[in-house]
Amino acid sequence: MEYQQLIERIFLETKSFAGKGKVASYIPALERISPDKYGISLINLQQDLFGVGDTAIPFSIQSISKVFTFTIAYSQLGAEIWKRIGREPSGTAFNSLVQLEYEHGIPRNPFINAGSIVVADILISLFPDPKQKLLEFVRTLAGDQNIYFNEDIALSEKETGHRNYALAHFMKSFGNIHNPVEKVLDFYFHQCSLELCTNALAKSFLFLANEGINPQNEEQIITSSQAKRLKALMLTSGLYNESGDFAFKVGMPAKSGVGGGIVAVIPNLLSIVTWSPPLNSMGNSVVGIEALERFTTYTGKSIF
Amino acid sequence: MEYQQLIERIFLETKSFAGKGKVASYIPALERISPDKYGISLINLQQDLFGVGDTAIPFSIQSISKVFTFTIAYSQLGAEIWKRIGREPSGTAFNSLVQLEYEHGIPRNPFINAGSIVVADILISLFPDPKQKLLEFVRTLAGDQNIYFNEDIALSEKETGHRNYALAHFMKSFGNIHNPVEKVLDFYFHQCSLELCTNALAKSFLFLANEGINPQNEEQIITSSQAKRLKALMLTSGLYNESGDFAFKVGMPAKSGVGGGIVAVIPNLLSIVTWSPPLNSMGNSVVGIEALERFTTYTGKSIF
Amino acid sequence: MEYQQLIERIFLETKSFAGKGKVASYIPALERISPDKYGISLINLQQDLFGVGDTAIPFSIQSISKVFTFTIAYSQLGAEIWKRIGREPSGTAFNSLVQLEYEHGIPRNPFINAGSIVVADILISLFPDPKQKLLEFVRTLAGDQNIYFNEDIALSEKETGHRNYALAHFMKSFGNIHNPVEKVLDFYFHQCSLELCTNALAKSFLFLANEGINPQNEEQIITSSQAKRLKALMLTSGLYNESGDFAFKVGMPAKSGVGGGIVAVIPNLLSIVTWSPPLNSMGNSVVGIEALERFTTYTGKSIF
Amino acid sequence: MEYQQLIERIFLETKSFAGKGKVASYIPALERISPDKYGISLINLQQDLFGVGDTAIPFSIQSISKVFTFTIAYSQLGAEIWKRIGREPSGTAFNSLVQLEYEHGIPRNPFINAGSIVVADILISLFPDPKQKLLEFVRTLAGDQNIYFNEDIALSEKETGHRNYALAHFMKSFGNIHNPVEKVLDFYFHQCSLELCTNALAKSFLFLANEGINPQNEEQIITSSQAKRLKALMLTSGLYNESGDFAFKVGMPAKSGVGGGIVAVIPNLLSIVTWSPPLNSMGNSVVGIEALERFTTYTGKSIF
Repeated sequence: MEYQQLIERIFLETKSFAGKGKVASYIPALERISPDKYGISLINLQQDLFGVGDTAIPFSIQSISKVFTFTIAYSQLGAEIWKRIGREPSGTAFNSLVQLEYEHGIPRNPFINAGSIVVADILISLFPDPKQKLLEFVRTLAGDQNIYFNEDIALSEKETGHRNYALAHFMKSFGNIHNPVEKVLDFYFHQCSLELCTNALAKSFLFLANEGINPQNEEQIITSSQAKRLKALMLTSGLYNESGDFAFKVGMPAKSGVGGGIVAVIPNLLSIVTWSPPLNSMGNSVVGIEALERFTTYTGKSIF
Repeated sequence: MEYQQLIERIFLETKSFAGKGKVASYIPALERISPDKYGISLINLQQDLFGVGDTAIPFSIQSISKVFTFTIAYSQLGAEIWKRIGREPSGTAFNSLVQLEYEHGIPRNPFINAGSIVVADILISLFPDPKQKLLEFVRTLAGDQNIYFNEDIALSEKETGHRNYALAHFMKSFGNIHNPVEKVLDFYFHQCSLELCTNALAKSFLFLANEGINPQNEEQIITSSQAKRLKALMLTSGLYNESGDFAFKVGMPAKSGVGGGIVAVIPNLLSIVTWSPPLNSMGNSVVGIEALERFTTYTGKSIF
Repeated sequence: MEYQQLIERIFLETKSFAGKGKVASYIPALERISPDKYGISLINLQQDLFGVGDTAIPFSIQSISKVFTFTIAYSQLGAEIWKRIGREPSGTAFNSLVQLEYEHGIPRNPFINAGSIVVADILISLFPDPKQKLLEFVRTLAGDQNIYFNEDIALSEKETGHRNYALAHFMKSFGNIHNPVEKVLDFYFHQCSLELCTNALAKSFLFLANEGINPQNEEQIITSSQAKRLKALMLTSGLYNESGDFAFKVGMPAKSGVGGGIVAVIPNLLSIVTWSPPLNSMGNSVVGIEALERFTTYTGKSIF
Repeated sequence: MEYQQLIERIFLETKSFAGKGKVASYIPALERISPDKYGISLINLQQDLFGVGDTAIPFSIQSISKVFTFTIAYSQLGAEIWKRIGREPSGTAFNSLVQLEYEHGIPRNPFINAGSIVVADILISLFPDPKQKLLEFVRTLAGDQNIYFNEDIALSEKETGHRNYALAHFMKSFGNIHNPVEKVLDFYFHQCSLELCTNALAKSFLFLANEGINPQNEEQIITSSQAKRLKALMLTSGLYNESGDFAFKVGMPAKSGVGGGIVAVIPNLLSIVTWSPPLNSMGNSVVGIEALERFTTYTGKSIF
């Protein structure tokens, strides 16, 4: 099969780029991961799964979880959600707090930390046990009942998460956090600690390439229109401050995490995941960006 | 033909939205335009042209010209151009000058004023007669030798363009403008004054939907890869600070101008142009956004 | 005595200005204070005390307490303190958090909230019981053993203090808060809740007019040079974002609080306190500013 | 006389600090000045003049001229001037243009470039020949008819003054510059090129120490109240972004220039000028700050 050959070729060509990045070190549990881990998984709409390398080792998906929590909240609130979160790119890192100050506590989009903390607050208001809800949601999408939070990582995040506390308290001062900050961040730190392997992650994002429908059970997770919109947000805001550059070079809606994962989709075609822990200065996987750029170059397939 | 019926339907449905906007009034020549002008043109890769309303009246394309000048510069310099201009969304209006200050005179992308002024500076360095070069370039793409600058508008822009002077001098203080400011802005104000009708504009953007090739003469304007990248930039930065929202609601790479025009493309499919002068608070055509949103909704076609 | 006549005249002339302001309402305990309370106390180096109006009613001194805590920290650390706090005016309100972000968690001066929270952190590191230390310090200066924290106000501050939590966590993310945020803010909210009457407050600032020496017991609180420097800081930063304007109109080193108090000194001459709760949009007492401006105008005495 | 001995002692002690700074190099005419030039002049209210070193060599006073032009404008417009310029410290360098953007073209105070450009605009509107008016004003204050602009320096400033052009155009876009930018900047660059020796400069600032009255001819230049206010502005904003620090360490209202001059006054006592070209990173004379700090330390005289 050509996808298998293609990702194997890309795997070999890009592996050595790992040396150019640095594994996230702000918490010990992430720092311990070997920089040499590398996996690519790809799944098409027919649910043919292709993989190369470390595709069955669960890793910390970190910010990729923001797509899961936002999907749940969006499916529940619909357009109401835009009263509390924007949908514009966030500009640069330098104005993370600046922007919140000027825009009165409304985060720019759901994929920056501030935005995802508001989403966490929404889920806490909506569900009696939001952690359980999230686990079930992700397990169903991934077709894998063995997905868990990593409590060590959640705890480490909490202990070093002063900036997230600052964001949450700051938004609370504007009235945009409704639940107690401790509770909101407890959930937020847990969502970030979710662990999935690249195979499971590829499966769990396939609904986005499939007009919002989980192809395993034909369940409509979000409407086709919502799925398009969510992909537009991923394109403009999914890779932190490198989003514009990634759209430019790769041209796929995607979301990255500091655990080294990147998940991307091509509408009506496929979902692809890379995992390689070393990060560039923007917090994105060096190898992952290199691999995905080659993927769209070699296939000639991107959204543009 | 279905495209014809579709745009006629959209035309009728959206026409009345003009009342919600305001025609640009910072220069008299723009202010005089009737708010009731409205045209839609669509052209597919087979060069079938569809139109409804005021499709043959040349109007001031303003910022849409930024795509033309950037295309010329990009075709000449290739990736070298990124030494002088970024390719990230610009964040909000509030930091137009702020951003330049923090980023030492490198504008965030080629579609904000500062970025396009740098492009103008590049063209002046590259061509002995950059105005003539631009006219020829646009005339060939549009297949129309009767495209001109509007000298009245160019002059008015100059007289009221204090903020553009500020931007140009500021970038010059960082060494990112190489030619005299007067000369650079004279070219810049002229490019903004270009007048095309929606038919001509739709034709002139078709190369972007066609992998960089002008379908009229098979000339490769920019490489396929460059065309993809340019469309990515249009998606993240083409509608001023409403770009993220437009990507979200409409899902097409596009560029707008304060003359009331919006041009959008669907890769490998078509180019579509709307013109209706009344603008929303972001400086984009109210009717145009409404029409294009319906277009992607009714056809189910967008890049996502 | 002429000071007595003078402050009585000013009292009568300025009383009615109270109608132009609004009592602080972010916590109930402050909102309950009658807007008609008004007192002026003045004490000279010879310790002659003059007063008019409500001079014996303890009120919430709020930010005025920042001078007390800073004085203690400065007397202990000397110039070392400038490693953790700046001594430049803070610019405008708009960049409270912005500024911290650009300057990596170092607050601009000890009289903005962020700066005083760092001072609180310092006192917690220095003293086993910093609250007791502060009470004793203020009681000795004021010559009044009946000075207390208002626990109701401290609690209210805590419950509504999300922005201060944001500041503290944000600085902690830069390593500029050494103790647990809860502990630091507990102290900070208590210091703000200190209650003194205008008479006691006037006495307690006399050391600043007296080269750092408490005239009651000849104790050198801080060196003469430190006292000069502290007054310079009060002049450039003592009235929030109205500091420049106050220096301009009044010309005395001063510190205000949202409880409606303002304390000002003229070096080698006197200390003067006004208390009137209604605040202007900058958070300073309307009547107080009016009264102090008249004081320097009528006496011709200011530092300029 | 003790002042003579004192400044001689300070001269000897501080001379070697010149090695720690760098002469301004953005224009050739300034760069050519020997870093070893050093003069101190002091004049008291009785007009006894004391001096040491290079006190009779005219040097480029640069931003010190902002006090002269503001004094003229203030004497003409009175409080009306505050409609177009603020009187708060400007915060940090980083927000020079930022601040103008947020505050809609109103510069923060008359001693930052933007503020002084507005003052230049005011003088152009008020006087048929503002350059001549300025020369006469300074000549009378200094008691020296041989004070001129340095046309070479004015021309160099113009050629490299892109940032000032940016400021002027930007303010014009907000309507806060009434005359043509070229004309305003021509005057502004000339005022900066004024050359005075330290003796002349000391004399010319004596009116500020003397309640607004020129002691040579008893002319009231500005009212006593205006003189106090102007000194307050100098204290909070006279040394660029080092103003707070200078107030803190030295405690005198002062104004510096990138030519290496600093002039300071003690109300009702004296005016003192230092000139030593090497600058610190803030653009202020290294030796001058050192000398003035010693002056207030040794005499125990400051405004605090």
